Amino acid sequence: MKKIAMLGLAGVMTLGGTAALAADAEDAIKYRQGVFNAVKWHFGTMGEVVKGNQDYNAEDFARRAEIVAQLSKMTLEGFVAGSYEGDTDALPAIEQNWDKFEGGMNKFTETAEALAVAAQSGDLAQIRPAFGEVGKTCKGCHDNFKD
Amino acid sequence: MKKIAMLGLAGVMTLGGTAALAADAEDAIKYRQGVFNAVKWHFGTMGEVVKGNQDYNAEDFARRAEIVAQLSKMTLEGFVAGSYEGDTDALPAIEQNWDKFEGGMNKFTETAEALAVAAQSGDLAQIRPAFGEVGKTCKGCHDNFKD
Repeated sequence: MKKIAMLGLAGVMTLGGTAALAADAEDAIKYRQGVFNAVKWHFGTMGEVVKGNQDYNAEDFARRAEIVAQLSKMTLEGFVAGSYEGDTDALPAIEQNWDKFEGGMNKFTETAEALAVAAQSGDLAQIRPAFGEVGKTCKGCHDNFKD
Repeated sequence: MKKIAMLGLAGVMTLGGTAALAADAEDAIKYRQGVFNAVKWHFGTMGEVVKGNQDYNAEDFARRAEIVAQLSKMTLEGFVAGSYEGDTDALPAIEQNWDKFEGGMNKFTETAEALAVAAQSGDLAQIRPAFGEVGKTCKGCHDNFKD
């Protein structure tokens, strides 16, 4: 993976910088944006429930929590070298601080899995703080790594 | 779900037809396109392996097959009433032939799950036909329901 990412970066540089974004990088951008759009749809609906704007349906909430946990594991591989320009809000800071970024994404998965477990309880008192922890990991990465 | 979809359609009609696409419909379009972009990324890579253009790595292939099976179950709910105009290639034929469309999407999940099982074998001779079956379900729906 890392090797492919480096080759991608080399490809972009050979073609002469920012104007020529490698096709692989464009695909990676579409991929990760797609996964995050799917996260947004489910996490947003869960947020409405947590805020009390939408009725709580335990089964549907647990289903969405499980999906967000699955999606959380799909995102990282979309952040390949050379994919921080063009149609993306992801900042080059991701490449410059990869370990921190990767740590943040792993935290996203950890908290999303904890939320999926909490959702199985069917108890909003357990769900609310677990939901908040996921939200914090979103915000943490967005503040540092998203335009 | 169906009830929510119907309310969405009513909302669009109240606002005066095709010009005013409900926000919910726009979100649904972004959601399903996001999920399909993620499918494309993984299924496309698997296709390169199946065609012999890329080395076969059993672990990575099985991981992608599992992801596609997971994603296949996320798509259907994005096809809500009133979401077949605007920035989408999905045709209104989906609403008009819902049972057929739903059947096609279920077939997508069935074949994707079978591919995930085949991928566990680590045997390309088992994987290739299973991969082909998934591809057929993609094409079947695209021919009928995609512009």
